[in-house]
Amino acid sequence: MDDRLSVPNPFHDPPRLPRGFRCASRNCGLKPRGPDLSLFVSDVDAAAAAVFTRNQVPGAPVLLGRETIRGGVLRAIVVNSRISNVATGEQGIAAARTMAAAAAAEVGTSADRVLVSSTGVIGVQLPVDRIEAGLRGMTAELTTDPLVGAEGIMTTDTHPKALSLSVGPATLTIIAKGAGMIEPNMATMLAYILTDAAFTADRLDRMLRAAVDISFNMLSVDTDTSTSDTCAIMANGLAGAVDEGAFGDALNAACVRMAETLARDGEGATKLLRVTVRGAATHGHARVVAKSLVNSPLIKTMVHGADPNVGRILMAVGKCFDVPVDADRVSASVNGFAVIGDGQRAAFEDERVRAALAADTIDVEVDLGAGAAGATAYGCDLTEGYVRENAAYYSS
Amino acid sequence: MDDRLSVPNPFHDPPRLPRGFRCASRNCGLKPRGPDLSLFVSDVDAAAAAVFTRNQVPGAPVLLGRETIRGGVLRAIVVNSRISNVATGEQGIAAARTMAAAAAAEVGTSADRVLVSSTGVIGVQLPVDRIEAGLRGMTAELTTDPLVGAEGIMTTDTHPKALSLSVGPATLTIIAKGAGMIEPNMATMLAYILTDAAFTADRLDRMLRAAVDISFNMLSVDTDTSTSDTCAIMANGLAGAVDEGAFGDALNAACVRMAETLARDGEGATKLLRVTVRGAATHGHARVVAKSLVNSPLIKTMVHGADPNVGRILMAVGKCFDVPVDADRVSASVNGFAVIGDGQRAAFEDERVRAALAADTIDVEVDLGAGAAGATAYGCDLTEGYVRENAAYYSS
Repeated sequence: MDDRLSVPNPFHDPPRLPRGFRCASRNCGLKPRGPDLSLFVSDVDAAAAAVFTRNQVPGAPVLLGRETIRGGVLRAIVVNSRISNVATGEQGIAAARTMAAAAAAEVGTSADRVLVSSTGVIGVQLPVDRIEAGLRGMTAELTTDPLVGAEGIMTTDTHPKALSLSVGPATLTIIAKGAGMIEPNMATMLAYILTDAAFTADRLDRMLRAAVDISFNMLSVDTDTSTSDTCAIMANGLAGAVDEGAFGDALNAACVRMAETLARDGEGATKLLRVTVRGAATHGHARVVAKSLVNSPLIKTMVHGADPNVGRILMAVGKCFDVPVDADRVSASVNGFAVIGDGQRAAFEDERVRAALAADTIDVEVDLGAGAAGATAYGCDLTEGYVRENAAYYSS
Repeated sequence: MDDRLSVPNPFHDPPRLPRGFRCASRNCGLKPRGPDLSLFVSDVDAAAAAVFTRNQVPGAPVLLGRETIRGGVLRAIVVNSRISNVATGEQGIAAARTMAAAAAAEVGTSADRVLVSSTGVIGVQLPVDRIEAGLRGMTAELTTDPLVGAEGIMTTDTHPKALSLSVGPATLTIIAKGAGMIEPNMATMLAYILTDAAFTADRLDRMLRAAVDISFNMLSVDTDTSTSDTCAIMANGLAGAVDEGAFGDALNAACVRMAETLARDGEGATKLLRVTVRGAATHGHARVVAKSLVNSPLIKTMVHGADPNVGRILMAVGKCFDVPVDADRVSASVNGFAVIGDGQRAAFEDERVRAALAADTIDVEVDLGAGAAGATAYGCDLTEGYVRENAAYYSS
């Protein structure tokens, strides 16, 4: 159970889809083996909202998705892995449209109600004929197990990722992928949130942005923002009205938990790094400092090495040039052990702290002593595995 | 020879000190073995200027150094390695003052003409009595070999670093250390520039800032800005007046070369990564994009893996949210091979480009197609060695 939640673990085990949602995945010949194409379908039209990468070289599916989501209604989401359809020009846009149309035909809706995502290699044209062929007959395989859909969207993820929880009469489910090229604004991160609660697209959009702001936008595996990030929510209303406050809380909790899951499975990662900054003058300051620690290679290798390095923590706080820091007021703890007080090394027993840092979750808490604002960022350790994986990755 | 310089390699081999400068190094008991204390002395007072880290948790020597350099005159620089005297409060300031006084007594000057630097572990008090004892009699060992002084300031550097060149009748010498916790504003980077040219402190300050701006401030090993960075220049005038334009050019060339030397010897590094951005609308934009590439873990592992990854280059350009990027106008080359044109993958032979990337210097050139401004940043590949070194580093 997550000690940040004041209630018992609310997540279903195993995760399930909300009523009226089903998914399938298949190999359509993009990967040598394993599913590389996923389809998520609602039995009825669903209100929808989405946020996309801020990267200025977005993929064709992101460009098309921004257009599609304006309608505020989705019936299906179709996703391929292995090729991202980024840096592919007009031909790429046409391929994304073809993919939407093929999924729409299979599902029995119109192309403007299908969200398209692609993730994988950049700069290679999508063999969209394989995707069209793969989609044919796919609705016959639809299942209620979200992990089936989660499998088809994986790239370097080590396991499929889905979670669900109940909110009153409704269910809220997130299917996602993560792994690398992940920082702030959701990098090669795809997350699809499905619910049978009834909300308008406008309300979904507002709640989605609030939830993403404290979860996926505070997640960083490697500071690298992908060109394909997409986080979409579909609400088909089959469970009727749900209290908006309760739903917002559930959405926040689910997105934070999924952000932690993605960080923990970051490329090469062996530990979840959670950095909470308190005592900041503004919320913006707290976010900047929390991200500075989560992104610092020296903090990330310190977490990998299970060493409470006072100097690296102070360094990563002090290098936030746009946040006024009074060094003498900074305190910090690591997994509950005070390691810095009033800007100086606190008295602590190295061996005891190192033993505590053998845990698979490392909580670094920093108090800036400047105010009352706070924020939490999510990341992972930096390991030889990350380097091996990314130095060996060939782009073609 | 550096292909960026239009003249033959101007650097002396081996490097030498300008007239009137000498240095020594000793083991004073901070490190188990090897020199950990260096002294640089001018026979006469020298005009001086310095720049220091922007980190907001600066070490005691940086706080004292900002005070010392206001006088604009130095006779000596004293540096210890192994303990940085950072996060040490009032006791740390007192230790830095004691260190300056001890060096001044040994050299025969006043403490306000001695610049103090310390580099190494943060959060540990400096055993200043060992440094006082170490300094005693050290002037008897002064030599004209700059590499002797360079040895005493090393931390994780794999070799001592010094270079020198002639400017008219004068000599310009840089002694530096680098390795890790290096980004922008000169992280655990110490660089001492000595010359026998005659300049006022004001002119030195102006020329130093200009040179640092295009060299050490464009250097990043790991995005982590140290608490101890110091770059100081001393001009003792013994060679008389030197043309200011020629001296500025020499200073720029020497600082860029030393930045490259530090990058190449970055922790775990096997390659120098040089990123030049052209065609930017402003110089600031060019700097931001060049730094984005040099700091991207996915670019750094790509360089390590010798793979021309079109997607990672586009990603690292596109994630500069504050720089307007027209994806369709971006082109890029790697070691002279065009890999991106008009925002799309160019036609290139993978195997030929990979073979070229086996070189120990990787030049990535990006043209934004937006204007006429440019900048170059200096970094290195990210290797398993970096992770090993920093995960195994114990802070106490």
